[in-house]
Amino acid sequence: MREKIPLARAMDVHLAACTDDMISLRTPLAPNVNDKGCAFGGSLVSLMTLNGWALVELALRQRGEACDLFVGESTVHYLAPLWQDFRSEARLADGSSWTTFFATLAARGKARIEVNCLVPGDNGASAATLSARFVAKRRP
Amino acid sequence: MREKIPLARAMDVHLAACTDDMISLRTPLAPNVNDKGCAFGGSLVSLMTLNGWALVELALRQRGEACDLFVGESTVHYLAPLWQDFRSEARLADGSSWTTFFATLAARGKARIEVNCLVPGDNGASAATLSARFVAKRRP
Repeated sequence: MREKIPLARAMDVHLAACTDDMISLRTPLAPNVNDKGCAFGGSLVSLMTLNGWALVELALRQRGEACDLFVGESTVHYLAPLWQDFRSEARLADGSSWTTFFATLAARGKARIEVNCLVPGDNGASAATLSARFVAKRRP
Repeated sequence: MREKIPLARAMDVHLAACTDDMISLRTPLAPNVNDKGCAFGGSLVSLMTLNGWALVELALRQRGEACDLFVGESTVHYLAPLWQDFRSEARLADGSSWTTFFATLAARGKARIEVNCLVPGDNGASAATLSARFVAKRRP
C-alpha cells in the first residue's frame, strides 16, 4: 500500500492490528491535520477506504485470487473531531459473507462486498464511520 | 488550504476555476495514483471534500463570518477510473440556498448546507460524485 499509493505514504499509514475478521490501520495526526488542528476529513475517509480495501485485498490474496479491487461507493459520517493520532478498523458488514463473495467471483469473475469501517473516538464512541461497497474483478 | 492542510499539499491541489456559483480544484495524477495506476479513491473523495469545503468557506469569508466549517457526512460514488490529471467542481445542491444558510447562521450561530461535487470523466460523464453536508459554527 505504501509502495504503490503515494497518498498512503504521505498520510504515514501503518498496520495497527490484524485478526481473523478485522484489520486496523493507524496514522499520526501531523500529516493528517486540518486548518482547525484536528483530523482532516479527507484523511479520515482515505484511511477508512484504504482499510476496507486492505480487508478485501488480503482475503483475495489468501485465496490466490488475482483481482483488481475498486471501491464502488461509500457513505461517510464524521461524528466528532480527533485531536491526536488515530486509527481505523474494518470488518465485513452485517449480511455480507466471504462465502457468497467468493462463490460469485468463481461463477462470474466479478463480485461485490460491503465493508464497515470506523475510527474510534473518545469513550468508546466512533469519531467517524464509513460503509463502502468494493468490487473485485479477476484480471485476464 | 495548502498552507494549513498537509494532505492538500501532498495531493498538489490547485485552484482551477472560480465563478459566482462554482469552484473547481485540480490535481495531477502522479501523487494521487493507486496500485492500478489510476486515481486513488481516497484522493478523489479528499479533493471533492476540499472543494465543497472551499465553496462554503469562501462564501463565509465574503460575508465576513468567522466560522469553523466541518464536513458532517457525505455519500460518494466512484463511477469510472481516471488515468490522467483530474479536477473537481463544487456547487450548492438543489434545494440548498445561501439565503437560508446565512439566516440560520445569524439566528443560531450554527447552520448546515448541502454541496454537490463531481469529477468530470470522459465524454461529459462524471467519474466520481460526492454529496456532502457541511456544518458552520461561529467562533466565540
